[in-house]
Amino acid sequence: MDVVDIDAAFERFEETWSPRLAASLNGQELKVAKLEGAFVWHSHPDADELFWVIEGDLTIELREEPDRHLSAGQLGVVPAGVEHRPVADGLAKVVLFEPAGTENTGDAEGTGRTREVESLED
Amino acid sequence: MDVVDIDAAFERFEETWSPRLAASLNGQELKVAKLEGAFVWHSHPDADELFWVIEGDLTIELREEPDRHLSAGQLGVVPAGVEHRPVADGLAKVVLFEPAGTENTGDAEGTGRTREVESLED
Repeated sequence: MDVVDIDAAFERFEETWSPRLAASLNGQELKVAKLEGAFVWHSHPDADELFWVIEGDLTIELREEPDRHLSAGQLGVVPAGVEHRPVADGLAKVVLFEPAGTENTGDAEGTGRTREVESLED
Repeated sequence: MDVVDIDAAFERFEETWSPRLAASLNGQELKVAKLEGAFVWHSHPDADELFWVIEGDLTIELREEPDRHLSAGQLGVVPAGVEHRPVADGLAKVVLFEPAGTENTGDAEGTGRTREVESLED
C-alpha cells in the first residue's frame, strides 16, 4: 500500500493541463493537475468527472447551466456527456477522479491540448 | 452540478465510524467519515478502498505488511481482499472513495459496527 502525499505530488511537476496519476482503484484513477487559464470546451461521453480544488480557484463553465465556482476545499462532479470548460483564474491545484482511460480533452478533437496521463515518477 | 464544501460536510454530523455520502460518480461513492479509536478488522472482497486524511492522523493496520501511517493531506488505497483495521489516535476526518454499496465493515459479521451510508442532509 503506497502512501501519497498530495502537497508533495504537486511539487513533482510544473506543466499545466497535464494530469499526473496519483492512485488507481476499481478501474478509476485519481489524478493531480495544475490548471491555469482557460481549457477547451469538451465532454466525456461515458465518464462522470470529479474536480476537487486543493489550492486556488476554479470555474467550471457549462453550456446549459450557470457557471460553478470551486474554491480550495470544494468539489463537484460534471456528469457524463455534459459539455464543460474549466477556467482557472491564476494557478489552481486540482484533484481529478474519473475512470481509467479518460482523456483530458474528452470528445474535443484537434485542439492540441490532449495529454497522456503520466505517472508522478516521470 | 452540486458543489460540496469538504469542511462544511464534516460539520454536518458528529457520529464516528458512520460514513456520509458526499458525491456519487461512475458507480463509485465519495464519503466523509469521522474516525476515532480502533475499528474492526475486515476486508472488502471486491472493492479497493481509498483513505484520504483531511485532518488528524490515521493508522491502517495490515495483517501481512507493516502498518501505514497517514497524516493530513496523505492518502492510500487498501486493495480488495486485504484485511485491514483503521485506527485513529484522536479524531480524524477522512474521505473514503470506493464502489457504491461497499459496507464499512466489509466481510466482518456480527461486530455491531455496520452502518448504512447516510446522505449529508440526514
